[in-house]
Amino acid sequence: MSYNRGRNSETSLVKKLWENGYGALRMPGSGRGQTYPHPDIIAGNGKKYLGIEVKIRAEDRCYFKDEEIEKLVVFCNAFGATPYFAVRFGGRWRFFKVEDLEKTPTGYRASFERGQEFSEVIGE
Amino acid sequence: MSYNRGRNSETSLVKKLWENGYGALRMPGSGRGQTYPHPDIIAGNGKKYLGIEVKIRAEDRCYFKDEEIEKLVVFCNAFGATPYFAVRFGGRWRFFKVEDLEKTPTGYRASFERGQEFSEVIGE
Repeated sequence: MSYNRGRNSETSLVKKLWENGYGALRMPGSGRGQTYPHPDIIAGNGKKYLGIEVKIRAEDRCYFKDEEIEKLVVFCNAFGATPYFAVRFGGRWRFFKVEDLEKTPTGYRASFERGQEFSEVIGE
Repeated sequence: MSYNRGRNSETSLVKKLWENGYGALRMPGSGRGQTYPHPDIIAGNGKKYLGIEVKIRAEDRCYFKDEEIEKLVVFCNAFGATPYFAVRFGGRWRFFKVEDLEKTPTGYRASFERGQEFSEVIGE
């Protein structure tokens, strides 16, 4: 994944969130070298708060290391947000809670067909 | 204010928030050129959510333009956070809600003696 494709996807997701009644911001950079964990995007609307890690994949599977899951969960538990993994599979966004991921020997897998659509994530 | 002094102050405030049970992150950069408003720091603990704009002043007054207030309020209203202005007056932090600021002909003024201490902001 190129840096720009990742940034553009994050920016487009922030825009979708604002257009749907959320305040949202994206954290520039990878987060390496920072003392505390943080998600790529954080969003809220006064009722729901979302901590979102963003990935782009051409194929219909996305793999995560245990450490990526753990960092997002640590931040979200402290902040008071629901952790989501947002994966753009060939242009189609799907959203995964931790329990929607499947365990693999070395981490977790997100499969396109198990993901939620944007409207499900932002709804009540 | 030098860029580094501002960044160091924001980093120390993020650390204080984590040490007091909040998840917190700072947004690098000034926010100029970004489409949507965002605060310098955002923090939450599952009960309280804070959007914080940070300033450093040697003297006991800090002035804000109307636009700065408005941007923070717009973000916080959408996100569901309480807007705070955090001013480090010669090393001592004081925190101001919008109603703690005094109107001036061209904007708003935060006066050291009208500010809340950190413990008041993070408490119930």
